[in-house]
Amino acid sequence: MATSSVDSDVTRIMLGVNESSIKGYPHASISSKSAFEWTINKIIRSNTTGFKLLFLHVQIPDEDAFDEVDSIYASPEDFRDASRKDKIRASHLLEYFVKRSHEIGVACEAWIKKGDPKEVICLEIKRVQPDLLVLGNRGLGPFQRVFVGTVSEFCVKHCECPVVTIKRSADETPQDPVDD
Amino acid sequence: MATSSVDSDVTRIMLGVNESSIKGYPHASISSKSAFEWTINKIIRSNTTGFKLLFLHVQIPDEDAFDEVDSIYASPEDFRDASRKDKIRASHLLEYFVKRSHEIGVACEAWIKKGDPKEVICLEIKRVQPDLLVLGNRGLGPFQRVFVGTVSEFCVKHCECPVVTIKRSADETPQDPVDD
Repeated sequence: MATSSVDSDVTRIMLGVNESSIKGYPHASISSKSAFEWTINKIIRSNTTGFKLLFLHVQIPDEDAFDEVDSIYASPEDFRDASRKDKIRASHLLEYFVKRSHEIGVACEAWIKKGDPKEVICLEIKRVQPDLLVLGNRGLGPFQRVFVGTVSEFCVKHCECPVVTIKRSADETPQDPVDD
Repeated sequence: MATSSVDSDVTRIMLGVNESSIKGYPHASISSKSAFEWTINKIIRSNTTGFKLLFLHVQIPDEDAFDEVDSIYASPEDFRDASRKDKIRASHLLEYFVKRSHEIGVACEAWIKKGDPKEVICLEIKRVQPDLLVLGNRGLGPFQRVFVGTVSEFCVKHCECPVVTIKRSADETPQDPVDD
């Protein structure tokens, strides 16, 4: 016996996902993958028709500047080309999650935004109104956090929907824990 | 197609629940009920066999002191009696959630601890190792929070499992938002 509102609609879970800082093009970060796997294994489980996943990747405008150090910008087209490369990177990242969702049989949508991740995520939450936001987290101690900041701490405080943060497991932490 | 770990075991969700400060004996607080209903409607949905709910109520040792202002303590037995009354109150609170869970058809366990709720919840998380902790929250602004503190903020930072905080909806907020 379920309450009347159960299964009246799907539960929409937004996942903020980003690229790995160590594994090279176009891998998902360890913490993004942890957040995704947790959502599948612990929340969605076998009830694949009861949920919809919304993957949001926020590109930081200067994020890929280092990849362009050997590029020569000689015309406006060169910049257009760099921006196009950014988009391809981002769409390859999202492709990973969309493909996995299709394999599992859960409906999904994925999109890219540019800006400051923590602010863009909060704005997108306001616009899309999901039931839950799941974010990966590197599980850094307070000392390391001072230098890198955490998107998840900001979102827990400011987003207009329930937020759950999934920490990387200890055995997945790379040599430099700031990496992901 | 699910991954091999899906449905290998149930997802264990702990809910920290407390009494209402306005509705009198033995009502659950508005935010505890919100957290419970959210868990049922948005997470468990129709998959009642995939989850187990763990209800924890932490009694603050002096919480009910005001109920005892007309009592006369003349012997050690009187104190034992007061402690017994506390236990009855707490078990009536838990009865509400256990009854609702049984109606819905989801397995559950419930127990009572004494102490500082935020610390006891973190200790119980360590002991019981649930997959998720769901806590209700009054949704107070920063000014109101200074005076009442919030258990959920502490648990988000210190508990060794993912934590999600469910805010009361605006239309459920009582006249004095510190009440619950």
